[in-house]
Amino acid sequence: MGRPKKRKGLGKLRPQRKSKFEGKMGKAPGTVTYMGRREGGESIVNVFEYNGEVLHTYERTTIESVLAQKGDSYTTWVDIIGISDEAFIEQVGKGFGLNPLVLEDTVNTHQRPKIDEYEDYIFGVFKMLYIDGESQEIVCEHVALILLDNRVLVFQELEDDVFAGVRSRVRNKSGRIRSRGADYLFFALLDAIVDNYFVVLEHLNERIEHLEELVYANPTNEVAQEIQILKKEVLKVRRWISPVRELVSRLIDSEHPLISKDTKVFLRDVLDHSIEINESLQIYREMSMSLMEMYMSNMSNKMNEVMKVLTIMASIFIPLTFIAGIYGMNFDHMPELHWKYGYPMAWGFMILLFIALLIYFKRKKWL
Amino acid sequence: MGRPKKRKGLGKLRPQRKSKFEGKMGKAPGTVTYMGRREGGESIVNVFEYNGEVLHTYERTTIESVLAQKGDSYTTWVDIIGISDEAFIEQVGKGFGLNPLVLEDTVNTHQRPKIDEYEDYIFGVFKMLYIDGESQEIVCEHVALILLDNRVLVFQELEDDVFAGVRSRVRNKSGRIRSRGADYLFFALLDAIVDNYFVVLEHLNERIEHLEELVYANPTNEVAQEIQILKKEVLKVRRWISPVRELVSRLIDSEHPLISKDTKVFLRDVLDHSIEINESLQIYREMSMSLMEMYMSNMSNKMNEVMKVLTIMASIFIPLTFIAGIYGMNFDHMPELHWKYGYPMAWGFMILLFIALLIYFKRKKWL
Amino acid sequence: MGRPKKRKGLGKLRPQRKSKFEGKMGKAPGTVTYMGRREGGESIVNVFEYNGEVLHTYERTTIESVLAQKGDSYTTWVDIIGISDEAFIEQVGKGFGLNPLVLEDTVNTHQRPKIDEYEDYIFGVFKMLYIDGESQEIVCEHVALILLDNRVLVFQELEDDVFAGVRSRVRNKSGRIRSRGADYLFFALLDAIVDNYFVVLEHLNERIEHLEELVYANPTNEVAQEIQILKKEVLKVRRWISPVRELVSRLIDSEHPLISKDTKVFLRDVLDHSIEINESLQIYREMSMSLMEMYMSNMSNKMNEVMKVLTIMASIFIPLTFIAGIYGMNFDHMPELHWKYGYPMAWGFMILLFIALLIYFKRKKWL
Amino acid sequence: MGRPKKRKGLGKLRPQRKSKFEGKMGKAPGTVTYMGRREGGESIVNVFEYNGEVLHTYERTTIESVLAQKGDSYTTWVDIIGISDEAFIEQVGKGFGLNPLVLEDTVNTHQRPKIDEYEDYIFGVFKMLYIDGESQEIVCEHVALILLDNRVLVFQELEDDVFAGVRSRVRNKSGRIRSRGADYLFFALLDAIVDNYFVVLEHLNERIEHLEELVYANPTNEVAQEIQILKKEVLKVRRWISPVRELVSRLIDSEHPLISKDTKVFLRDVLDHSIEINESLQIYREMSMSLMEMYMSNMSNKMNEVMKVLTIMASIFIPLTFIAGIYGMNFDHMPELHWKYGYPMAWGFMILLFIALLIYFKRKKWL
Amino acid sequence: MGRPKKRKGLGKLRPQRKSKFEGKMGKAPGTVTYMGRREGGESIVNVFEYNGEVLHTYERTTIESVLAQKGDSYTTWVDIIGISDEAFIEQVGKGFGLNPLVLEDTVNTHQRPKIDEYEDYIFGVFKMLYIDGESQEIVCEHVALILLDNRVLVFQELEDDVFAGVRSRVRNKSGRIRSRGADYLFFALLDAIVDNYFVVLEHLNERIEHLEELVYANPTNEVAQEIQILKKEVLKVRRWISPVRELVSRLIDSEHPLISKDTKVFLRDVLDHSIEINESLQIYREMSMSLMEMYMSNMSNKMNEVMKVLTIMASIFIPLTFIAGIYGMNFDHMPELHWKYGYPMAWGFMILLFIALLIYFKRKKWL
Ligand SMILES: [Mg+2]
Ligand SMILES: [Mg+2]
Ligand SMILES: [Mg+2]
Ligand SMILES: [Mg+2]
Ligand SMILES: [Mg+2]
Ligand SMILES: [Mg+2]
Ligand SMILES: [Mg+2]
Ligand SMILES: [Mg+2]
Ligand SMILES: [Mg+2]
Ligand SMILES: [Mg+2]
Ligand SMILES: [Mg+2]
Ligand SMILES: [Mg+2]
Ligand SMILES: [Mg+2]
Ligand SMILES: [Mg+2]
Ligand SMILES: [Mg+2]
Ligand SMILES: [Mg+2]
Ligand SMILES: [Mg+2]
Ligand SMILES: [Mg+2]
Ligand SMILES: [Mg+2]
Ligand SMILES: [Mg+2]
Ligand SMILES: [Mg+2]
Ligand SMILES: [Mg+2]
Ligand SMILES: [Mg+2]
Ligand SMILES: [Mg+2]
Ligand SMILES: [Mg+2]
Ligand SMILES: [Mg+2]
Ligand SMILES: [Mg+2]
Ligand SMILES: [Mg+2]
Ligand SMILES: [Mg+2]
Ligand SMILES: [Mg+2]
Ligand SMILES: [Mg+2]
Repeated sequence: MGRPKKRKGLGKLRPQRKSKFEGKMGKAPGTVTYMGRREGGESIVNVFEYNGEVLHTYERTTIESVLAQKGDSYTTWVDIIGISDEAFIEQVGKGFGLNPLVLEDTVNTHQRPKIDEYEDYIFGVFKMLYIDGESQEIVCEHVALILLDNRVLVFQELEDDVFAGVRSRVRNKSGRIRSRGADYLFFALLDAIVDNYFVVLEHLNERIEHLEELVYANPTNEVAQEIQILKKEVLKVRRWISPVRELVSRLIDSEHPLISKDTKVFLRDVLDHSIEINESLQIYREMSMSLMEMYMSNMSNKMNEVMKVLTIMASIFIPLTFIAGIYGMNFDHMPELHWKYGYPMAWGFMILLFIALLIYFKRKKWL
Repeated sequence: MGRPKKRKGLGKLRPQRKSKFEGKMGKAPGTVTYMGRREGGESIVNVFEYNGEVLHTYERTTIESVLAQKGDSYTTWVDIIGISDEAFIEQVGKGFGLNPLVLEDTVNTHQRPKIDEYEDYIFGVFKMLYIDGESQEIVCEHVALILLDNRVLVFQELEDDVFAGVRSRVRNKSGRIRSRGADYLFFALLDAIVDNYFVVLEHLNERIEHLEELVYANPTNEVAQEIQILKKEVLKVRRWISPVRELVSRLIDSEHPLISKDTKVFLRDVLDHSIEINESLQIYREMSMSLMEMYMSNMSNKMNEVMKVLTIMASIFIPLTFIAGIYGMNFDHMPELHWKYGYPMAWGFMILLFIALLIYFKRKKWL
Repeated sequence: MGRPKKRKGLGKLRPQRKSKFEGKMGKAPGTVTYMGRREGGESIVNVFEYNGEVLHTYERTTIESVLAQKGDSYTTWVDIIGISDEAFIEQVGKGFGLNPLVLEDTVNTHQRPKIDEYEDYIFGVFKMLYIDGESQEIVCEHVALILLDNRVLVFQELEDDVFAGVRSRVRNKSGRIRSRGADYLFFALLDAIVDNYFVVLEHLNERIEHLEELVYANPTNEVAQEIQILKKEVLKVRRWISPVRELVSRLIDSEHPLISKDTKVFLRDVLDHSIEINESLQIYREMSMSLMEMYMSNMSNKMNEVMKVLTIMASIFIPLTFIAGIYGMNFDHMPELHWKYGYPMAWGFMILLFIALLIYFKRKKWL
Repeated sequence: MGRPKKRKGLGKLRPQRKSKFEGKMGKAPGTVTYMGRREGGESIVNVFEYNGEVLHTYERTTIESVLAQKGDSYTTWVDIIGISDEAFIEQVGKGFGLNPLVLEDTVNTHQRPKIDEYEDYIFGVFKMLYIDGESQEIVCEHVALILLDNRVLVFQELEDDVFAGVRSRVRNKSGRIRSRGADYLFFALLDAIVDNYFVVLEHLNERIEHLEELVYANPTNEVAQEIQILKKEVLKVRRWISPVRELVSRLIDSEHPLISKDTKVFLRDVLDHSIEINESLQIYREMSMSLMEMYMSNMSNKMNEVMKVLTIMASIFIPLTFIAGIYGMNFDHMPELHWKYGYPMAWGFMILLFIALLIYFKRKKWL
Repeated sequence: MGRPKKRKGLGKLRPQRKSKFEGKMGKAPGTVTYMGRREGGESIVNVFEYNGEVLHTYERTTIESVLAQKGDSYTTWVDIIGISDEAFIEQVGKGFGLNPLVLEDTVNTHQRPKIDEYEDYIFGVFKMLYIDGESQEIVCEHVALILLDNRVLVFQELEDDVFAGVRSRVRNKSGRIRSRGADYLFFALLDAIVDNYFVVLEHLNERIEHLEELVYANPTNEVAQEIQILKKEVLKVRRWISPVRELVSRLIDSEHPLISKDTKVFLRDVLDHSIEINESLQIYREMSMSLMEMYMSNMSNKMNEVMKVLTIMASIFIPLTFIAGIYGMNFDHMPELHWKYGYPMAWGFMILLFIALLIYFKRKKWL
């Protein structure tokens, strides 16, 4: 492209804004820069500390106190809500000995899903998707999971999450989760994230089915617009969700000592679900393309009907008007005008013509 | 997407329902939750117990009596019909020492086809597809097959199935199936499932061919709608059927001791058929896309024809009407009106014009 | 899908026929069931028995006499024409010690191309394609080739085949084929089958080029229909032909003792050709899609032309008719009507308007 | 194709120009031929020479003085701006012992991104993309990076580049870059190039979103043209950017001694970003295709609306005009004309017809 | 398909010609059959014999004299022009000990690009593409290269070729080519072929850009036709060019003793270029598809404009004509006719209606 000659008259069609990436450009790698839209507010730290017998719950505690407890006899779930305070994140990172690149990706809400294995920990970035109760829109929340020796760190943007079920299982003393280690907790959180994708898929599926009915019933321009919005959302959801399949599959094949063989059996179940989700997304994509096709075909149909009405009305009445025009001429010598039955004969002829044209259109199945 | 600003006026285009997955969210993995629509009713247990010489048939027996008989000299086919009673399924699972994840997938009717190898058994989930005799619709029934040492467990939702042929071969003392082990029975059931896919494919093929004729003969809006329904069904059938190819291929390559080398020769035949089925589905997909294309082209054609009629009628009679209008004017001084042959000359001129336009349209091949 | 609610009014759009696969369902694997449409008639057995010096030809001999001769010093080509007599095929199978699954696929005309290696023989299924002299349609004949130690069995449906060249080379004492073994004969037959695919491709290519000319010259509805038929035939031919590439490639890599290293050099030539054929089919597919696109674009063009004629005629004569209508009004006080030159002035005004509109349409390049 | 017969009348549709590649044809490989459009001007050489303690900056120095300093205790960044002087480039190449093929690709601005590993150095070609401040167009600048033992050579076409951030980090004594070797500098430059791709992607994304709004608001022909330009730019940007993913991935897997294990951790971050970029480009491609689809659907809608107005106006007034025409006839015996209330009755009838047609179109939802 | 029932009325849409492959059918493999269109004429043999010091040039020599000189101290380039004389080709083949399959492919101008490694030589088939100076069409010439121990045989159809640059480098005593062996010559010829593909790509690119301008300026039916021709040419060029990438890549990985390690570095440059070429072809394909899309969108636009003119003219003048019609009625009692200002009032009303309709269409942005 080089420096392309500007096509005239098209400049006004192009937007001119500033880049949100500008702030990140040129920084050293590992620079912790929050990229999300949920600025402000302090981070909240909630902690579960449990084993088969005991459960300690610390709500809104400080990161210092978490770092102080290094009890190896517990599994600890550290839930950090709010990741816009970059200094705080760096403090956590130093406390747990995390690589700066890990911290950068923890707060980079544009980071695609990934799992990176480090010697002492496993780092995963995922997207929690859930339907906002109020707006019924799909919310996409960036979440980072870090599996350490007997701890799992969770970094999330908002207090809402999809872990309610996991929390209640942790609170239930007799649950399997209480008797297993941090890797099972890591799995359980990942499983909760993936399970929730089904809710989002169902939401998409219902919109597709609803649009399908609308396309048949009343294909307005708004319906076409909504189909395009749907297509775009399927694209975006696919982007957030589809890498998980590959990631989980690689995690199962990995030989990292932090993941036990027992937990891999459960991860295979997550893999199963991610395969299913990817297939669904592929089908939704094809279905939304079909929707647009059906919309266009219905539009053609409607146009056809409009044209038929016009053609029938015009083809019937234009010739009749011509005949009336003939006998509206003012020639001195027009014998028909003086016939006794001229007028009824004209009517008769016009009615015959009318019927003939009706039959013609009936035969063509346009009526 | 984050929390997207709501586009005004589009909210009404979106459905608002509750998720059927809500019940499953947050549960521990391995929780047995029936996801199908065939609720209620007790499970039926039918058993065939056979070897080369003897065949015992137990209809509507109990699972306890099945567990009691551990005769190693027989091959046993345990057929469990109705999987909505979760407690019962868990009882069966415990009796045969099955992993909770296996039970979960056994009753999860949304589970995609899969084969999981465990140390002591092989677990497969498939979709039985058959045409309902009454509605002529494709029925999709979830079925789970479990191959144990000398037993095959079958879990299905409804009494209807595709195993009639296998049953009659089991009853026939001299058949090959009677002299072979449980792995051959497992193969025979899988083969019956896959064989039946051909019936479903043929059903789809006939619908495609029927629609093809309709598209040429009378492309109404209903035909377009039916094409879209067909496309959607091909998509869904593909989803249920296409994983089987990969699964069988992996089963043939597996070294699980429960599958003998002899049986693998037969599995290769099943593989052959699944490849063929996948190719057919691909072709059906392309053919249904062609159908829509042909429909659109026929629509264009029809529109063209409508427009030609309108254009011909209007182009001929509007100029003629204009001429009649001329001699309907009331000017004091219009010499033509007083000519002796004014009126026939006007007619003559109009007829000439009419013929000239006819020739023009004839030349354009619009007539 | 489960048991879907029937959409009203669409039932009539669906065909209701019986499955041709019904007869095969539930049968044991290896059951020999002819699936083709060339029923009846006895099978014919023709035999060539040759080595570098001698050639014995047995026309319409019996299978018993073939089995009797076990002369190891000859290469034998057993050509069996007509495969609808299932008992006869089973007899041949037993005579040569073939697996029942081989026999099943030998007569299953729906079997896709395949090569299966057994310990003592190599079994291949292919589709012979040739243009029927009379109807100029593509004929697809199912053919099975079995390479035994020093024999090749050929099973075909009809007397017509693509082996005339191979036969004449066998009859020619000095040809290379006479000095080589059964594997070279197997290659020669496969080569003849693949060589003939080029004739079929050329037939398709000519139809594409012919349709291309038609689309430019006169895009009628029949042309669109013919394009769709062509697309469907390309799809079907692709299905019959395209697996050959993979099969031959695997045969070359195989280490089966019946295929000598010398013959593999020749098989590589067949592989070359199958790659070329697959590429051609891909191109034909894209070209037939282009044809439809061009057809639609020509349709749009024609519509545009029709609309221009209508618009020009209506836009010119409707205003003129209005003016004539004005002076056809019967008001008492219309001064123009009494002007001496009122009538010619009206004409003058109408002619000016006519010319102005002509210039307008000329400028728009619609004329 | 061979020598194809020229289709008449199409020749004028084909351009006839001279090839810019002509100059390169037939030359020996390794011939240094500048292919870009920024001819003329001398090359500028800027040098940074640094280690953890010291930084020497040489602006607009000569290549001879660079070659003279062979201080192994420094990392040296040699930035060569302007690559159109082929003799100069060959001099540099000889000075550093580079392969002629490397030099050829260094100045061949048509070279796609590549990384070639030589024994003593690693050679990379990339495209710097940035938005020109003035024209708001995407500028594509060819850049070659050569990693030698403790030197990095950078060849670029223009003084503008995306390395401002790297330069400021080099100037900052306490930055990580100062304490690491030439391989880290090589990474930092590559990272800067890739980071800037996000700015270009965002620019494309904004244009897509802007066009989306325009398509809904006012789908003029210019908008369609702009969509096509966008599609083309996405294609071109994809070509320049997408190979980077594969290149970086291979560099990470390479065992070249010049790349340390520490630097590979950082390269993995670049890999991450290139994956993300490729996914975005794929999505932009689909979105620009959707834009065109939406444009076409809006066009259809507009046409539909135009046709409805025409149909309603014509269908209402043509019949009314016919009635008026009837009573404009001049028959001697037309009783209605002499009725006292003939005229108001005619009006009444016409008004009734008018209302009936209005209701008809209202019912059809065309009004 | 079997023997399909002939659809009536479509037969005439199908061409009936004879196959050019018929001559090849049934022949033994290795039969040398020229498939090209440049029949007749004797083959010309030109020879370069050179080493670092000496160059012998033999123009229009005989093959016998070439075979006689077996000087191992020279690299020999044997250029054979004209391959339609099958006996001559077989003579050359025997002289150099070539496999009959090699000879068959040497003269089979339908052979796709390939490289086959034999024990004593490497055999390559390629397509030389160049723009014919006169017709400005792409010429495709079949060329076979055979690399023997210290000889390269070139078989080409016509005297024109793309090797002018290589010849002049051979003549130049100090060039690198003179000091290297036959494998470098083989590379140089392949490089010349591939370099010339860029000229063909540029030719295609210019046609695309030219058509782009035409599509915006004046989308006639000829433009659509030209787009389709372009699409077809891109398809064909892709077929001729795209295999080269894979072939060169395999040649680099091969361990054939005739290709030295030094020459592989140069082959990697050819590989680079073939990758680039394949990418360009992919982009050209997408761009030609975009062209057609843009054409269709412009057609829709034009139609829209036509319809707007019609709708405006008809919607304005049909109601006005109706009003004129009203006052052209001949009722005895029509008070308005006798009003003093009836006529101007009618005009006034009609002008008001005219203005109202103009404003209405202005508001709709149709004017
Ligand atoms: Mg360009
Ligand atoms: Mg950076
Ligand atoms: Mg980063
Ligand atoms: Mg949250
Ligand atoms: Mg789960
Ligand atoms: Mg599961
Ligand atoms: Mg956005
Ligand atoms: Mg769960
Ligand atoms: Mg599950
Ligand atoms: Mg059932
Ligand atoms: Mg079967
Ligand atoms: Mg079989
Ligand atoms: Mg399409
Ligand atoms: Mg069977
Ligand atoms: Mg079979
Ligand atoms: Mg036959
Ligand atoms: Mg052949
Ligand atoms: Mg060959
Ligand atoms: Mg051709
Ligand atoms: Mg070159
Ligand atoms: Mg180069
Ligand atoms: Mg620069
Ligand atoms: Mg970066
Ligand atoms: Mg990162
Ligand atoms: Mg059929
Ligand atoms: Mg042959
Ligand atoms: Mg050949
Ligand atoms: Mg030549
Ligand atoms: Mg080159
Ligand atoms: Mg190069
Ligand atoms: Mg398209």
